[in-house]
Amino acid sequence: MADLPTETEEQPETEISGSAAGHLPDAAVRAVSEALDENRIDEVRDYVEFLHHAEVADLIERLPGDKRDRLVGLLSDDFDPNVMAELDETVLDGVVDRLGLDQVAQVVAGMDSDDAVDVVEELEDHEQREVLDALSESDRTLIEEGLSYPEDSAGRLMQRETVAVPSHWTVGQAIDYMRETEDLTTHFFDLYLVDPRHQPVGTIPLSRVLRTQRHVALNAIMSAELRKIPVTMDQEEVAFLFRQRDLISAPVIDGSNRLVGVITVDDVVDVIHEEHEEDIMRLAGVGEEDDLYAAIWATVRSRSTWLFIHLIAAGAAAAVVGIFRGTIEQMVALAILMPVVAAMGGTASVQTLTVAVRAIAMRELTPANAFRTVGKEIIVGFANGILFAVMIGLATWAWFGNLELGGVIALAIIINLVVAGLAGSALPVVLQRMGFDPAVAGSALLTSITDVVGFYVFLGLAALLLL
Amino acid sequence: MADLPTETEEQPETEISGSAAGHLPDAAVRAVSEALDENRIDEVRDYVEFLHHAEVADLIERLPGDKRDRLVGLLSDDFDPNVMAELDETVLDGVVDRLGLDQVAQVVAGMDSDDAVDVVEELEDHEQREVLDALSESDRTLIEEGLSYPEDSAGRLMQRETVAVPSHWTVGQAIDYMRETEDLTTHFFDLYLVDPRHQPVGTIPLSRVLRTQRHVALNAIMSAELRKIPVTMDQEEVAFLFRQRDLISAPVIDGSNRLVGVITVDDVVDVIHEEHEEDIMRLAGVGEEDDLYAAIWATVRSRSTWLFIHLIAAGAAAAVVGIFRGTIEQMVALAILMPVVAAMGGTASVQTLTVAVRAIAMRELTPANAFRTVGKEIIVGFANGILFAVMIGLATWAWFGNLELGGVIALAIIINLVVAGLAGSALPVVLQRMGFDPAVAGSALLTSITDVVGFYVFLGLAALLLL
Repeated sequence: MADLPTETEEQPETEISGSAAGHLPDAAVRAVSEALDENRIDEVRDYVEFLHHAEVADLIERLPGDKRDRLVGLLSDDFDPNVMAELDETVLDGVVDRLGLDQVAQVVAGMDSDDAVDVVEELEDHEQREVLDALSESDRTLIEEGLSYPEDSAGRLMQRETVAVPSHWTVGQAIDYMRETEDLTTHFFDLYLVDPRHQPVGTIPLSRVLRTQRHVALNAIMSAELRKIPVTMDQEEVAFLFRQRDLISAPVIDGSNRLVGVITVDDVVDVIHEEHEEDIMRLAGVGEEDDLYAAIWATVRSRSTWLFIHLIAAGAAAAVVGIFRGTIEQMVALAILMPVVAAMGGTASVQTLTVAVRAIAMRELTPANAFRTVGKEIIVGFANGILFAVMIGLATWAWFGNLELGGVIALAIIINLVVAGLAGSALPVVLQRMGFDPAVAGSALLTSITDVVGFYVFLGLAALLLL
Repeated sequence: MADLPTETEEQPETEISGSAAGHLPDAAVRAVSEALDENRIDEVRDYVEFLHHAEVADLIERLPGDKRDRLVGLLSDDFDPNVMAELDETVLDGVVDRLGLDQVAQVVAGMDSDDAVDVVEELEDHEQREVLDALSESDRTLIEEGLSYPEDSAGRLMQRETVAVPSHWTVGQAIDYMRETEDLTTHFFDLYLVDPRHQPVGTIPLSRVLRTQRHVALNAIMSAELRKIPVTMDQEEVAFLFRQRDLISAPVIDGSNRLVGVITVDDVVDVIHEEHEEDIMRLAGVGEEDDLYAAIWATVRSRSTWLFIHLIAAGAAAAVVGIFRGTIEQMVALAILMPVVAAMGGTASVQTLTVAVRAIAMRELTPANAFRTVGKEIIVGFANGILFAVMIGLATWAWFGNLELGGVIALAIIINLVVAGLAGSALPVVLQRMGFDPAVAGSALLTSITDVVGFYVFLGLAALLLL
């Protein structure tokens, strides 16, 4: 069962089949784990040889902590730079510790400039210094330049190696140049044309270069409508642009409009993924470092920060209820119905918040239509408020045999759902305006708002009308 | 201010600058809207001419409903297929209605096969029939074949037009073939090599074709480690594979291992985006059709379904509180503290759920480590439970001057946070096992679980220990 050779045969080597596509089967991870336990080192080494570098990274990530260290130790003599580039940030930390900085410097030296920057930026300051010092001067300069751009900017994302030729060349000259230049990057999809000042003037997809006769001038087939990306552009903006325009690569320019690098779609795919993750985690009130691979203590710490913020908000809700302590004492049915008021308001506000945060990310919700959107959400809240007010009001009447109580909760539901629509849509817009990520509003914070409002309105109306 | 020519000048034509990148400024949308009001038709037409097709789609989406119809009417004589391909699903519906099916058929005829399938699949059955009947037989066959694949499968996603050559050719032969074949697709990044049965045997990135001498045999420079995608593979699986392997394109094969199409990364970017959106919307209990552009009534309907489900869950929580009605009557402080118990459990369970759903999507959380993950979440819940139990217990003691009450809420918090960790991690795993999307667990459903458990434990302990 747990013999590695069997697993190796099961693992498809040259093609993908069914749902196991590109993903190591659990059995393989278990088998490696057992082989490590039983010290069958050569078997593990042979098995890892077979795998694609993304699968090796996957394997390292999915092993439990101690086994992970042993496997990394086993591979440390000749650690594959491609594997390093694929590692999850949280796991990367541990791998760096296990390898030691000298070894890390060697691995980094073997990486493309954009991947190398990704690894080095994760290190502590003194670790960065040590790794950079161990590199050759040219490697160090490239990485230091990369690090000099703001975090999450196009400069960090781009690959420095570009394929650019003078715009007055012919197709034949360009092909000959590409054939003869030994150290050209292998990773390019468009040919960039530059003027003598190295400013990009046009682009040609490789398919078009290939399909054109040698004698044709490049500037006759180039697209002059270039999407040039300033080196300081935020990566979220870059991702939006790639997605909207279906770009495969785009030239990056410095302040003097000179070509300094290229961003390719595979890096953008990672950014899109990261940005989404950031949204989803922030909406839930979870730190971005909260990862399945994170240690228990780190997870406890990261979650407790948000729990504490929500505790304060819950304290406010409790204080509101406290104001009406006498009212509840006289009519305990109010306490029983409080969860219903809270759940309706909470659900409606989270729904609205999510739609709004997503619309802001998609550039659909902008200052121009903010008023219209908030207005729409208020109407939606009002309409659902009436619908659920009737249902809940009737159910309350039936349950407690108290028509007035039914009326009070109905009114409270309508008001709370209108507030949920207002707060859920306006809060992210305001946060965005103030320069914050709209997702930090967080579903739990909004829920606290609707709790406070809902309890105040419900218990307040009860005190006013019922007693 | 509202003159279109001014806006046209403001709109960058050949380059992107700053944060307005690829995104129409609000002022431009407003100006078009005003121009439509004032019937300055020619101005609007001229302005739209200037825009990239993605920007035209953006403009149509961002105009209010009535203006949107007028603009579409204006463009209807010669509606750009590329614009149609970029439209948001919700807006597409309206545009189809406005254009009429004859016109839509004409537009669809001008689209790539994958984009055409995207549009046709959104139509009602009788509309599909009518549009398909109006197409030429070859167009119709391509689209009908596309529609015959399961929704969200690789077959729907792929482009049928492939560039494949016999594997025994030389680089020179391939280049000549590409130069001489008139109706080759312009949208390709890799050259596929096929055997006589049209089964793919290798792939070569165009950059490598370009950099190799003409006399070299293609099979000498091809990569034989092909990532072949079965036509039935789910698009989520396809997206995972592209992201993990940094693919730009991948060949799609039918049951007989024959090359039937190609998936390119630009389509995958859209899938990644859609899948993320699905997760984020489901976690919040919002229907996927809930869009900023959706009509108010559609939004009310889509939200009310989830509100209703949560109402039932909230009813359960209320019923639990109802059981302890007598207890609350004797000690109203319990009602005041209920929101705190609910908020802590709700926040912790949503945090856990979000991390788990994300880990499942990333293939990090698998059956193999499910037990370990749930175990970790329980420990995290326990640790934070103790931390917050102490804080809340002391605060309660101070507030109500009742040490026992502090002890009871402390105990309830610990138990509720452990349950939150257990439910938040186990529920998505179980759902996934049963073949459901783990995100449908939804944050509000989980919150109801922690409400019910939290109230039961808190009020039950109070009844047992305090009275």
